[in-house]
Amino acid sequence: MAELFRLTATDVSAKIRSGETTVEEYAKSLLSRIEARDAAVQAWAYLDPEYVLEQARALDKVPQDQRGPLHGIAIAVKDVIYTKDLPTQFNSPIYAGDAPQVDAGSILILRKAGALIFGKTTTTEFAATTDGPKTHNPHDPKRTPGGSSSGSGAAVGDFQAPLGLGTQTGGSTIRPGSFNGIYALKPTWNSISREGQKIYSLIFDTLGLYARSVDDLDLLADAFALADDAPPPIDFQIKGAKFAVLKTVVWPQAGAGTVAALKKAEELLMAHGAEVEEITLPAHLDGLPDWHATVLDSDGRTAFLPDYTVAKEKIAAQLVNHVENSNKVTRKAQLDAFDNMAAARPVVDEILGKYAAVIVPSVADEAPLGIEKTGSAAFCVIWTALHTPVINVPGFKGENGMPIGVSLVAPRYHDRKLLAVAKKVGEVFEAEGGWKRSV
Amino acid sequence: MAELFRLTATDVSAKIRSGETTVEEYAKSLLSRIEARDAAVQAWAYLDPEYVLEQARALDKVPQDQRGPLHGIAIAVKDVIYTKDLPTQFNSPIYAGDAPQVDAGSILILRKAGALIFGKTTTTEFAATTDGPKTHNPHDPKRTPGGSSSGSGAAVGDFQAPLGLGTQTGGSTIRPGSFNGIYALKPTWNSISREGQKIYSLIFDTLGLYARSVDDLDLLADAFALADDAPPPIDFQIKGAKFAVLKTVVWPQAGAGTVAALKKAEELLMAHGAEVEEITLPAHLDGLPDWHATVLDSDGRTAFLPDYTVAKEKIAAQLVNHVENSNKVTRKAQLDAFDNMAAARPVVDEILGKYAAVIVPSVADEAPLGIEKTGSAAFCVIWTALHTPVINVPGFKGENGMPIGVSLVAPRYHDRKLLAVAKKVGEVFEAEGGWKRSV
Repeated sequence: MAELFRLTATDVSAKIRSGETTVEEYAKSLLSRIEARDAAVQAWAYLDPEYVLEQARALDKVPQDQRGPLHGIAIAVKDVIYTKDLPTQFNSPIYAGDAPQVDAGSILILRKAGALIFGKTTTTEFAATTDGPKTHNPHDPKRTPGGSSSGSGAAVGDFQAPLGLGTQTGGSTIRPGSFNGIYALKPTWNSISREGQKIYSLIFDTLGLYARSVDDLDLLADAFALADDAPPPIDFQIKGAKFAVLKTVVWPQAGAGTVAALKKAEELLMAHGAEVEEITLPAHLDGLPDWHATVLDSDGRTAFLPDYTVAKEKIAAQLVNHVENSNKVTRKAQLDAFDNMAAARPVVDEILGKYAAVIVPSVADEAPLGIEKTGSAAFCVIWTALHTPVINVPGFKGENGMPIGVSLVAPRYHDRKLLAVAKKVGEVFEAEGGWKRSV
Repeated sequence: MAELFRLTATDVSAKIRSGETTVEEYAKSLLSRIEARDAAVQAWAYLDPEYVLEQARALDKVPQDQRGPLHGIAIAVKDVIYTKDLPTQFNSPIYAGDAPQVDAGSILILRKAGALIFGKTTTTEFAATTDGPKTHNPHDPKRTPGGSSSGSGAAVGDFQAPLGLGTQTGGSTIRPGSFNGIYALKPTWNSISREGQKIYSLIFDTLGLYARSVDDLDLLADAFALADDAPPPIDFQIKGAKFAVLKTVVWPQAGAGTVAALKKAEELLMAHGAEVEEITLPAHLDGLPDWHATVLDSDGRTAFLPDYTVAKEKIAAQLVNHVENSNKVTRKAQLDAFDNMAAARPVVDEILGKYAAVIVPSVADEAPLGIEKTGSAAFCVIWTALHTPVINVPGFKGENGMPIGVSLVAPRYHDRKLLAVAKKVGEVFEAEGGWKRSV
C-alpha cells in the first residue's frame, strides 16, 4: 500500500471500489509523496493536508450506491480555476487574501463525480505570461516544468496527483505535458464549460486535462461528457491505419530533441504497420501563428482592463502592454486575424479528417534550463487557434534525457476518437520511444 | 431637488461635481422613487437601501481629486453579473443562499470609476429562458418589460436608476431597451470583459448597457474603454448622411408597431436631409437565425452541464434539453453553423460600412400583454451572431401607446461612431417619433 500514489486514477479507483483501500489511505499516500518531493518540485500554490484528509474521510462515508465515477480520485487544480473552499490567487498579488468564493463549472462537475479536489497548483500570472512560478521540473529541478499550467503538469508528472486540470490559451496545457512526460488533452474549444476560469482570450482559452494514462483521460472525458458525432473505434489498431506527420510553418524552430522525436514517432508507427505520409497545410494558412498573436494581443486588451484599472502597478508589463495596446494592433488587423482563423478551421478539419490522427510537434525541444521562463508555445498556438483537440503523448527523450512528447491532432469534436487512437499510439511510444519515468 | 432621480447620469454627475447635491441626496431620491414604484414594477432582485446609503456616504467622503468619472452615479446590475457584496442568484434556486463572492470584471471597472453599485435587477433564469421574472413594464404593468435583462430595462425606463447593465445572447439587451423606451447598447462582442458574467454562449454573450440618453451611454463607453480605429465624428449631421434600412429575413414576423416605426424612422431621416436606401443581405445569409439557434443549443449543452450535474431538477426544461441535446444537434451541424456565422461577419461588415448607420427592427412589436413571457428575440439574434454593435433608439409607439425603438447597427468595432450617429438620430426620433415618456 505504500506506493498507492504511483497508481493511475483508473487503477486506484478499482481498489477503492473493491474496498482494497480507502480514500483516506490513498490521500495519505499522495500526501507522503508530496512531503518527500515538495522541496524539490514545489508544484502547489495551496495545499492543506488536514483539509484533504477531512474531505477524504467524508468521501469514505459516502454509501457505495451514492458514489460517483471519480469517487476519491485526487485532482490537482491550476490556480486560475475557481474553487470555493480553496483560495484562488492566479499568481497575482491583486488577489492576496481576497479569493473568489465560487466553484468553477468544471469543479462543480468533478465534485459531483466524487473527485477529491486536492489543492491548487502553480501558474504563471493569470495563466498569461511566460515568467515561471516557483515550480521545478520533477525530472530535473534545474529545468522548467513549462507553463502556464506549471504545477498541474509537474504534480502529475511527479506522482503527486494522478489527474490535473490546466488551461491553454497558447500552449499552456500541451507544453507542460511534454516537459513533464505525461498525457495532456486540450479538448475541442468550448466542449467543456469555462465558467469560473480566468479569461485571457474567449476564443482560445480551453480547459486542459492531465494524466499518466489515456484511460485516465477517458475518465475525465466521461465526466465532462465529451462526445463526438460517431462513437469512437472500440479497438483501434495501428496496423493498417493511416497517419500523417505535419511539421507546420514553425518547423525551423524545432530543436534536436523534437526533430528526433518526430522522426522516431513516424518510424515506430510504420514499424507497427501504419501508413504514414508527410503533409503540409495550404500556404495561405502560414499566417496562423501571427493571427493567434494578434488576437491574443487584442483579447488581452479587453481581458485585463479590469485588473489594470484596479492595480496597474501590480500586473506584468506584458499585460499592461495588452491593455495600453502598445503593439498598436488596429481593430482592422484584429478582425482580419480573427476572421482568417475562423475561415481556416473547416479547411484544416477536412485535411485532418483523412487520418486516424495527425502527428505534430508538441514543443520546440525538451524542457530548457532555468525556471525563470516556461518555454516557447510556437508549436501549440496553431492548434489552439484552430480549436482542434490535441493530445500530447509522451515517450521520447531529448539530448539531456528529459521527456519529449509529440501531439496527435484530429478535427474539432473528434476528441473521443483521438483518445482511442492515442491509447494505442501511446502504448507504442511509451514502450519503444526511448524515455522512461525515473522519478 | 425632489426629482433628482429624473436626471440623466451626465446631468446628475455635473450636480455632484459642482457640489449642488451629494451622492447621499441623490441616492435618497432614487430610493424614494423605488419606494413609490416598486410595487408596480418590481425591477429589483436585491436592493438594500441602508447599504446603498452607506456606500453613498462613503463616496461623499472621497476627496474631489480622487473621484472617478462615474462618481456617485447609480447603476442597476443584472443578476447574472457577479457582485462581491450583493448576492448573485441568476433567478435560479440552485444559488439561493450561496452566491459567488467575487466582482465581475465590469463591476471592478465601474467601482474604480466611482459608480454606486445600486442593487441587482431581475433576469430570466440564467439569462437563458424567456420565462419572465416578477417584473412589470413601467409603462403598463400588464405587459412584460422584455427579457432577459428585465429588471435593468424596467429600472432605467422607470427612472429608478440612470444606468443599467444587461447582457445579450439572443436579444436580451435590445428587446428590453425597446419595450421600456430607453437607449440600449449591445457593443461589439468581446469589447468589454465578460469575466464574472454567467455563461450561456461564449461566442454570443455580450455585456449590454442601458441609459436614457446617448451621452450617458458614452460615459459607460469611456469607462469600458471602447475604441474604434478612427475617432468618431465630432459633430455628426443627419443632413447629407447616408443611411440604409434593412428589414432582414425575419421581416414577416414584424407587427404593426414595428412596421410603422421603421417607416417613420425612414421618413424622419429623409425629412432631416439624409439619404436612405433600402438594402437586403445576400440570400446565402438567410440561415443566420437558424445558425444562431443551432449554436445556442450546442453551447447551452456545454454551459449548463455543471448546473445540470448539480441539480437537474432545479433548472428549466429548456436548459435540460440543451444538456441532453434533445434537438439532436450533431457536431457537424453545430460546426457548420458556427463557421457560417464566422464567414458572414466580414461580408456584413463591408455592407454596413457604407452607411452612417443601418436601421433595423429592434423587436417584433410593442411589449406584449402578460409578464409570463418576455417576447421574441427574432430581430436581435442576427446581430448577436454577427458581433456588430447595436443601439436601440427609442421614440416610436405601438398601437397601444407602448414604446417601440429601432436599432442602429454598424460594422464590428464601430461602437463609438455608432454612438455619435445615434445621438443625432435619437434627438429626432425622440422629438418627432410620436412616443413620450409619461411615467
